[in-house]
Amino acid sequence: MLLRDAVHGLVAFEGDVERVVARLLATREVQRLRRVRQLGLTALVFPGAEHTRFAHAIGATHVMVRLLARVRQVEGALDVAERLDDEAERDAVAAALLHDLGHGPFSHLFEELLPGGVAHESWTYRVIEDDATEVHRALEGLSKGMAGRVAGLLRGRYRLGYLARAVAGALDVDRADYLLRDSQMTGVGYGLYDLDWLLRSFTFGEAAGQTVLAVEGRKGLPPIEAFFLGRHNMYQQVYHHKATRGAEAVVRGIFTRLGELVRDGRAPERVPLALAAAARGETVSLGDYLRLDDAELWSCFASWADESDAELASLADAIRARRLPKTLPLPQGAGERERWKAAEGVARRIVREAGLRDDLHVRVDVAETVPYEEPVGPGPEGLWVVIRHRPIQRLGDASFVLRQLRGKRVRRPRLVVPAALRGDIVRGLGGLLDPCEPGADEDLLVEGDLR
Amino acid sequence: MLLRDAVHGLVAFEGDVERVVARLLATREVQRLRRVRQLGLTALVFPGAEHTRFAHAIGATHVMVRLLARVRQVEGALDVAERLDDEAERDAVAAALLHDLGHGPFSHLFEELLPGGVAHESWTYRVIEDDATEVHRALEGLSKGMAGRVAGLLRGRYRLGYLARAVAGALDVDRADYLLRDSQMTGVGYGLYDLDWLLRSFTFGEAAGQTVLAVEGRKGLPPIEAFFLGRHNMYQQVYHHKATRGAEAVVRGIFTRLGELVRDGRAPERVPLALAAAARGETVSLGDYLRLDDAELWSCFASWADESDAELASLADAIRARRLPKTLPLPQGAGERERWKAAEGVARRIVREAGLRDDLHVRVDVAETVPYEEPVGPGPEGLWVVIRHRPIQRLGDASFVLRQLRGKRVRRPRLVVPAALRGDIVRGLGGLLDPCEPGADEDLLVEGDLR
Amino acid sequence: MLLRDAVHGLVAFEGDVERVVARLLATREVQRLRRVRQLGLTALVFPGAEHTRFAHAIGATHVMVRLLARVRQVEGALDVAERLDDEAERDAVAAALLHDLGHGPFSHLFEELLPGGVAHESWTYRVIEDDATEVHRALEGLSKGMAGRVAGLLRGRYRLGYLARAVAGALDVDRADYLLRDSQMTGVGYGLYDLDWLLRSFTFGEAAGQTVLAVEGRKGLPPIEAFFLGRHNMYQQVYHHKATRGAEAVVRGIFTRLGELVRDGRAPERVPLALAAAARGETVSLGDYLRLDDAELWSCFASWADESDAELASLADAIRARRLPKTLPLPQGAGERERWKAAEGVARRIVREAGLRDDLHVRVDVAETVPYEEPVGPGPEGLWVVIRHRPIQRLGDASFVLRQLRGKRVRRPRLVVPAALRGDIVRGLGGLLDPCEPGADEDLLVEGDLR
Amino acid sequence: MLLRDAVHGLVAFEGDVERVVARLLATREVQRLRRVRQLGLTALVFPGAEHTRFAHAIGATHVMVRLLARVRQVEGALDVAERLDDEAERDAVAAALLHDLGHGPFSHLFEELLPGGVAHESWTYRVIEDDATEVHRALEGLSKGMAGRVAGLLRGRYRLGYLARAVAGALDVDRADYLLRDSQMTGVGYGLYDLDWLLRSFTFGEAAGQTVLAVEGRKGLPPIEAFFLGRHNMYQQVYHHKATRGAEAVVRGIFTRLGELVRDGRAPERVPLALAAAARGETVSLGDYLRLDDAELWSCFASWADESDAELASLADAIRARRLPKTLPLPQGAGERERWKAAEGVARRIVREAGLRDDLHVRVDVAETVPYEEPVGPGPEGLWVVIRHRPIQRLGDASFVLRQLRGKRVRRPRLVVPAALRGDIVRGLGGLLDPCEPGADEDLLVEGDLR
Repeated sequence: MLLRDAVHGLVAFEGDVERVVARLLATREVQRLRRVRQLGLTALVFPGAEHTRFAHAIGATHVMVRLLARVRQVEGALDVAERLDDEAERDAVAAALLHDLGHGPFSHLFEELLPGGVAHESWTYRVIEDDATEVHRALEGLSKGMAGRVAGLLRGRYRLGYLARAVAGALDVDRADYLLRDSQMTGVGYGLYDLDWLLRSFTFGEAAGQTVLAVEGRKGLPPIEAFFLGRHNMYQQVYHHKATRGAEAVVRGIFTRLGELVRDGRAPERVPLALAAAARGETVSLGDYLRLDDAELWSCFASWADESDAELASLADAIRARRLPKTLPLPQGAGERERWKAAEGVARRIVREAGLRDDLHVRVDVAETVPYEEPVGPGPEGLWVVIRHRPIQRLGDASFVLRQLRGKRVRRPRLVVPAALRGDIVRGLGGLLDPCEPGADEDLLVEGDLR
Repeated sequence: MLLRDAVHGLVAFEGDVERVVARLLATREVQRLRRVRQLGLTALVFPGAEHTRFAHAIGATHVMVRLLARVRQVEGALDVAERLDDEAERDAVAAALLHDLGHGPFSHLFEELLPGGVAHESWTYRVIEDDATEVHRALEGLSKGMAGRVAGLLRGRYRLGYLARAVAGALDVDRADYLLRDSQMTGVGYGLYDLDWLLRSFTFGEAAGQTVLAVEGRKGLPPIEAFFLGRHNMYQQVYHHKATRGAEAVVRGIFTRLGELVRDGRAPERVPLALAAAARGETVSLGDYLRLDDAELWSCFASWADESDAELASLADAIRARRLPKTLPLPQGAGERERWKAAEGVARRIVREAGLRDDLHVRVDVAETVPYEEPVGPGPEGLWVVIRHRPIQRLGDASFVLRQLRGKRVRRPRLVVPAALRGDIVRGLGGLLDPCEPGADEDLLVEGDLR
Repeated sequence: MLLRDAVHGLVAFEGDVERVVARLLATREVQRLRRVRQLGLTALVFPGAEHTRFAHAIGATHVMVRLLARVRQVEGALDVAERLDDEAERDAVAAALLHDLGHGPFSHLFEELLPGGVAHESWTYRVIEDDATEVHRALEGLSKGMAGRVAGLLRGRYRLGYLARAVAGALDVDRADYLLRDSQMTGVGYGLYDLDWLLRSFTFGEAAGQTVLAVEGRKGLPPIEAFFLGRHNMYQQVYHHKATRGAEAVVRGIFTRLGELVRDGRAPERVPLALAAAARGETVSLGDYLRLDDAELWSCFASWADESDAELASLADAIRARRLPKTLPLPQGAGERERWKAAEGVARRIVREAGLRDDLHVRVDVAETVPYEEPVGPGPEGLWVVIRHRPIQRLGDASFVLRQLRGKRVRRPRLVVPAALRGDIVRGLGGLLDPCEPGADEDLLVEGDLR
Repeated sequence: MLLRDAVHGLVAFEGDVERVVARLLATREVQRLRRVRQLGLTALVFPGAEHTRFAHAIGATHVMVRLLARVRQVEGALDVAERLDDEAERDAVAAALLHDLGHGPFSHLFEELLPGGVAHESWTYRVIEDDATEVHRALEGLSKGMAGRVAGLLRGRYRLGYLARAVAGALDVDRADYLLRDSQMTGVGYGLYDLDWLLRSFTFGEAAGQTVLAVEGRKGLPPIEAFFLGRHNMYQQVYHHKATRGAEAVVRGIFTRLGELVRDGRAPERVPLALAAAARGETVSLGDYLRLDDAELWSCFASWADESDAELASLADAIRARRLPKTLPLPQGAGERERWKAAEGVARRIVREAGLRDDLHVRVDVAETVPYEEPVGPGPEGLWVVIRHRPIQRLGDASFVLRQLRGKRVRRPRLVVPAALRGDIVRGLGGLLDPCEPGADEDLLVEGDLR
């Protein structure tokens, strides 16, 4: 099977591996990922970010195939029992392809907001393990017990520990693909590290008594540093972009209001079964969950924009017409929580006075990330560097750059407010936004801000 | 306004132009283009091809802004009356942004199939000229009469003829962007000509008594040759890909069957108003038309897959699960029409015998394109080349490569058949597929064929 | 061995192959290629074109390594006797690395001008076969008889015919690399075809009773068409650039005058032994030949610019200061030879009247190339396309685009004249340059013309 | 004037600026830069690194032209007296083109080694200010006093301070180009920051009472962070590569020995006048200095390899055949100086015992760099960030990443030793290389190590 990919170019799944990929791609649960965008609402800010979890799944699988080729080059140093065999390769390829299977539209919002929300990983395991799915049947048709093994891999449990960490770890095939893909599709280019060189630099080492995939020598450091710095920049400039956070607040509002209406017996005409069940606190069936996709929700938004409930209608209309709330930067430092609370209080009062529901339209939004996190204890988790004749080191000890960043946290606290009331709220806040003067914008450059 | 684009990188709309772009982007008719994919069903074959007409509209506008900058560099040679002024620049930028405004989901299928179908260009003019739309109001708010001028530009009528041809001509800003964008997003790279050099090579000349934008000197030929050859390759490898044509046949079947059900009074629960009206041969209102988008249709497909009508349900399910028909190459040459008809007859019989409707499941599909077309007569249309001290020439006379291709037609006739019956049909056809032996596949490489 | 390359990125020579590459790179004859530019005088016009034959040799070797990997994927269809073995792979890799070994500085000028000139290919064979060279000893140290086998491969004679054609054929590893490299380094981008896809599309077929490497299916055509069209553009825009041709005329003049001085016993103080011997019509020893490189000649130019012979000094100074002659386009068509001769006569007279030697300063220069040449007879040479269930075809029969170009010739006749006398000569020529009017420049865009 | 560049693509010098560039490119002092490689000996390790200071000068000029365009976009905020005028633009463009004019071959080695060595900057000023040079005459021909103004700019003294800092500052046009160019040509890609975005993010601010070019907002940080991190990686992986440092040690040895021979009256037949004068401690004339270029020196190396002095001959032969010394990593930390001295002593003894001169063949080589340096005091030097409504900040205060790195120093101490004696020396050193065990290589990956 030959594919063309915007990120990796020619993607070939040939040889024995092919059967796994082709079989799984033919299932409807994998095909469903075509209808789930990788970056949710980000396309409202970066118009190119329309890429799907389907394309990402293929990309992650491609990275896994290349990683396995590298492992075979260097596994001579391992005990035979630790080397790859056909089963392990097939399991790993399947796991790479299926790792995001349980993602729904706006996954994180969905998980967070609805009472019956379940982490997307759990849905992934369910799709793989439920014997009614096409994916499950395809896996078991390929090899008896494969569904269980693949789900195990995704949970981090596998007879080859290094393989489990390559599926879900600090630098796994998921991240390896999405960083490149998100960078390229958004057009920002921040995460374009050197994948060829990174893959070539992997070797085996031993840490905490276990076999680990490690970076070989100082020459392997630049791509891995670029990876983490690129990820940091993607968080600052894309994932945590103020307009995206604003759009998420709108969708949160829609879900909140929808839940109230469902529970009040005033549900709109069209409510996907999964949303209705979740709103009532009932268990969501796998079938209903898998019916959800971006198309379904955007089509619902269109329908809800015509609903009689004014709050729901106006929020649904706002997201379709891209009329987003504004954000105001909140101060950081001593006493910040109290100051945020005070600012939120002021904004809520003004919003209420304007006749809007303050809980749906005002939000303290704290985006945060740790650019480079590293385990401290003795386990094999995390990233390692092998330099000849020296004891294996943690990446943060070997890399001058990452050592400086290790464990540091970056935060962006903001107040999300209705665009029309922004001026009033800024005035009302007075000195509460200090050290910024009143009216401070977070940024002068309105990158990606279409309005 | 600063944007990031996967194709052009940093896209800046600053200065006076900015007001036009920002104002128009804020309208809901333009925002709707976020929900219409540029390449319709192609993403089923090239997974990266999820880019929208919104992103393309921004790209085409960016190319227009750059083209205008080039025009200003060289317009000194023109009479003052033929030079750009602010109004012309604003009109041109708006036209570039709005040129695809009337596109709906799967436009070409939609236009072709439903009795009330209207070309997408007509819808574009209606959105611009109808004084109920936000786009119309935005245009008139920018400058009195602007809606009419912009619609005129898009129709090829404008006081500066060269500007009209830059909006809709053999090498207009639409094509200039989509060729790059489609190439990059599909991952094939065939259409990646050198836009910088192409823009730089434009100058003014006079042809047929009119001012034309022409390519300056032999040095300007390579990018323009690459443009047309890239376009040829995109047609052969992407736009006319057999699996895409197969998917289009499925959607045609859905629309056909839906129309029958509507006219029979057995319409499914969810039918978009525009489709229902069109099916009944009634006029489609602008509002109903603009409610259509990819999300709406894909959501309908989900709903229709559960309908009681077996034909509709199975076709809707097929497109969602990507279970596509197969294609068989048809012979070309003397007597081809009769041979196609005979082959179609055989296939229809086998399909009927299998209990399927032959009109929905068998189709002679002839994809064709002319890689480089050139007007023959005396008009200013088409592309021109200026070489110093020589009379202006048509591109096909100046370019060694395009001269060879001028006016040649490339065709790919195929028979679309159900995948499950492909073997039976190949056997039934016997020698009718000759010169290919029975069972011939069009290609050995199954690029983009996910199953 | 890991290398970084501007064109191919990460270049790894690992496994068994590595020994061949590392051993040969360590020889002084291969290291000498660092001092020979790939494109001779082209850097005077495209400032980036400083890349060496050394970098190109590594690139061609990389392409060969990748081609061999593809061959191993598809050789299952061949008789065992026709498959690759270790010896054949090593021979092929060595041949790719060494194929340009005999190139000297400005090879083509050198071969053409000096009486003792010998084609660079002959020097390549001599370096490989002469048992005094480090290359020869390295080859024989790797495997007994390897020097002879590698020289055979380069001469097109080898037990696996397809391998010989991959070393020196219509689309060999030499061309595959140089087209990419020259395009990228000059910055024009014309030759950037898709190498990944091209390599992937190779398969085996049988033509004229012999096993040939062929392109598989229509999907393999775009990169190969791009290859030949890119090559065409590189000839038109780079290799045959008027300023490069002008610079070559200067170096021709230097060599001509130097030869006269040597033969007259008035040789300048510094004359490389190889040049002196060649000028006297004596045999050039291999050692003397290999002492020649770009550094040696440019250093001689510096020295000759101070010589007492005015002609030699002024030409040497001109090339160092980039004071190049101009070119005038000559007419083509009926009676062209006579018209060129007449034009040359006029120019020579004017040059003589200005006190210059007309034979050194006026030249009819006809650059010509055939963008796509294809053998006609029954042999296995040339390029082939395999489409399943059809007889193997020549590329020109399968490709719509190349069919149009096959066998066509492109020519650029020019008159090279001293820059200072260009005006006088144009006036003197009167209508002889017709159909261009007097004073016509070839191009309006002075790409790469630094003055 | 249109140029093609491997890094920037289409480079256009049009409008008024063109006259400056075209006039200066036509001088022989600028043409000489074609014969000086940007990265000296690095091409011995990264074969693509053959790019010249000429190509870099054009690239830096292109960046300057783009920077000036940005300045004109934002200078409305400045007093009229601080805005650009034609003179300032021409001066700035000329300064960008001429900034490296005084570079000779292997500049840093040359400056360091020969008694009469003078910093390359001084030679640059001399070429510009000496009224016998073509550059000087071209400048004065363009505008009276221009030579003085341009030299002033290069010295950091100009009526517009921000322009002087853009010519020679922490992020000047020189660095902006060379980081991209060196990254691309070596093939490592480490320094490929986003130039478009960086240029767009410049605005004016006021620091220390002076107008400064500053980065606008947080959105401008990623490219500038990428710039400094890319520079860090280029130092670690390219500029300070162990094999390059080894090659430099060889050339140092050649210059040292040549100097001794010259002073002893035993100079080889060919010694460039500038080297001879410098060796004798005499003043080097500008003319003699400008005769030096890479071709001259490599041609001398060829000649010296045949000299009777064994030391000179063997070193010259070694650099031509790329037979480089090896490096051993030296320990860092407490008492390091003493340990280095001890290790050097051991190595020198072994080298002497092998009959070689220890001062020419053993060297403690400490490569060091500060990835991000920032002035501390109150001056306008350094880089600034403007975030609306906040006081201007130093870049290191605004950037989370650069704050961590600010002022940190990275060092690589190594012992350079003859390759043939490496084993003996490692054994002789015993524990002196600790914490690395005996025989430690710096890196496992032999990137760029051709032997």
